Amino acid sequence: MARILSGKELAAKMRQEMQTELTELKSKHNLVPSLSVILVGDDPGSISYVKGKEKACAYVGINVQKYKFDADYPQADLLKLITDLNNNPDVNGILVQLPLPDHINEEKVLYAIDPEKDVDGFHPINVGRLMIGAPGYIPGTPHGIQQLLLRNDIDISGKHVVIVGRSNIVGKPLALLLVQKKPGANATITMCHTGTRNISDFTKLADILVVATGRPHTVNAEMVKEGVVVIDVGVNRIEDSTKKSGYRLIGDVEFEEVSAKASAISPVPGGVGPMTITMLLHNVIQAAKKQKGISKI
Amino acid sequence: MARILSGKELAAKMRQEMQTELTELKSKHNLVPSLSVILVGDDPGSISYVKGKEKACAYVGINVQKYKFDADYPQADLLKLITDLNNNPDVNGILVQLPLPDHINEEKVLYAIDPEKDVDGFHPINVGRLMIGAPGYIPGTPHGIQQLLLRNDIDISGKHVVIVGRSNIVGKPLALLLVQKKPGANATITMCHTGTRNISDFTKLADILVVATGRPHTVNAEMVKEGVVVIDVGVNRIEDSTKKSGYRLIGDVEFEEVSAKASAISPVPGGVGPMTITMLLHNVIQAAKKQKGISKI
Repeated sequence: MARILSGKELAAKMRQEMQTELTELKSKHNLVPSLSVILVGDDPGSISYVKGKEKACAYVGINVQKYKFDADYPQADLLKLITDLNNNPDVNGILVQLPLPDHINEEKVLYAIDPEKDVDGFHPINVGRLMIGAPGYIPGTPHGIQQLLLRNDIDISGKHVVIVGRSNIVGKPLALLLVQKKPGANATITMCHTGTRNISDFTKLADILVVATGRPHTVNAEMVKEGVVVIDVGVNRIEDSTKKSGYRLIGDVEFEEVSAKASAISPVPGGVGPMTITMLLHNVIQAAKKQKGISKI
Repeated sequence: MARILSGKELAAKMRQEMQTELTELKSKHNLVPSLSVILVGDDPGSISYVKGKEKACAYVGINVQKYKFDADYPQADLLKLITDLNNNPDVNGILVQLPLPDHINEEKVLYAIDPEKDVDGFHPINVGRLMIGAPGYIPGTPHGIQQLLLRNDIDISGKHVVIVGRSNIVGKPLALLLVQKKPGANATITMCHTGTRNISDFTKLADILVVATGRPHTVNAEMVKEGVVVIDVGVNRIEDSTKKSGYRLIGDVEFEEVSAKASAISPVPGGVGPMTITMLLHNVIQAAKKQKGISKI
């Protein structure tokens, strides 16, 4: 049976490390990192994600200012708020929870955030830095996947990493991150997606398989080779009457059968999810330190 | 024998189209696109590249202002010049010929160029736009490779494109360009490089193989499958006493033996090279039109 790559455990460990660092940062430099979180509308998923981020920030010692608006909040007001936060030296990071309501141009909003406060790493300038290997904010999910592998002593260099899914927040930035000629990267990368003719031709070749399609049952045991390392990024709600909530979460991978063949696998929940938030915390801390001249990121 | 994908012929055709467009643009809108080219130092390769760009601009009807400085030109002066060009509404595009002398921070210089005038597409904001599929300037070589395939009726969608080489100006941006869910793209992408354990394991799987390593003899006939389409990006000088210059140019691919197995192949010289410059011209024209409000890019 495969080793379980517990993001939950690793995230707990890393957050404890961060807590220690922030205690020191406060006593030595009187610095408490500060994150502004903007939530527009009542999407239940977004509300729950923001709650998770607030809780994690509170735990490690990051101040959060939450701005919550109704779904009809005007775009111009949102852009004005972002400008104010950009100009406020007490704000280290700015996070706009996605998706935004339809009347708001998401791209315009993300571009408006000062790249130095863009702790989600979604501003094109940070994307560009990621591609060319320059210092910048790496988006939480790809960064969390890299850490989950490395901190479990899974070498990435020289491995064939097959990524299923080409989203702007997982597939493409992960490819750019892991292809770099750097320690903890240097992988051969294949990117598959809905346009790939026969996905199993590629998944079978993977030493490390990352599945981020948002579709349950994307990968089963027949589609992987013996000993593969599997990272399951999917978070899918399926009905389950035995649960109080009426549903449970599953990934994009058939966990039971694939874990019988894999050497290591990340579970859902408790795999990539907690790592994503942890790397956001990391970015906020880096932003605060950089803006106060305490260290470079 | 493989069909020859002549970049020389295609570039000639596209430049003629551009010439026609620019004649019309001048008569209808009194607009002549303008490119500022900055060359620092005496690198013979750079001098020859700049000459090629000047000639191509002149042919299609783009004005060029060339700034040529000695190798010891101070970085501060160079940055000052770029600021002036950024602020000059008569300048549509700015190109700094790379590489720069060692005392100049290349990154700092590229970041200083207004992204709207960055016709090389090297500013991180344009790299970011490329990744997320937003409009922006696409670097000439990847864009030229895409056009060389498409205008030769080689479908990219659904194909397995294997890229050997992970540079910031070819390998990585080409991967981002061809993986997009868009017409003329939508390929499954594999990126190989010096960290790949056995490159021929991957090159053999390619429907379309792009080789951009800068090393002659990187790919031979044993490393490709029957019917592959090969794009050779390499430009390597090797000694040849039968030539007046004392050298000739070869690519990264063993042209003779690979073309016996491939269905199509781009030659060196006369393949990707002329396409790179052509797509630079394209960017300058788009920049001029966008800045004058004539059309979006």
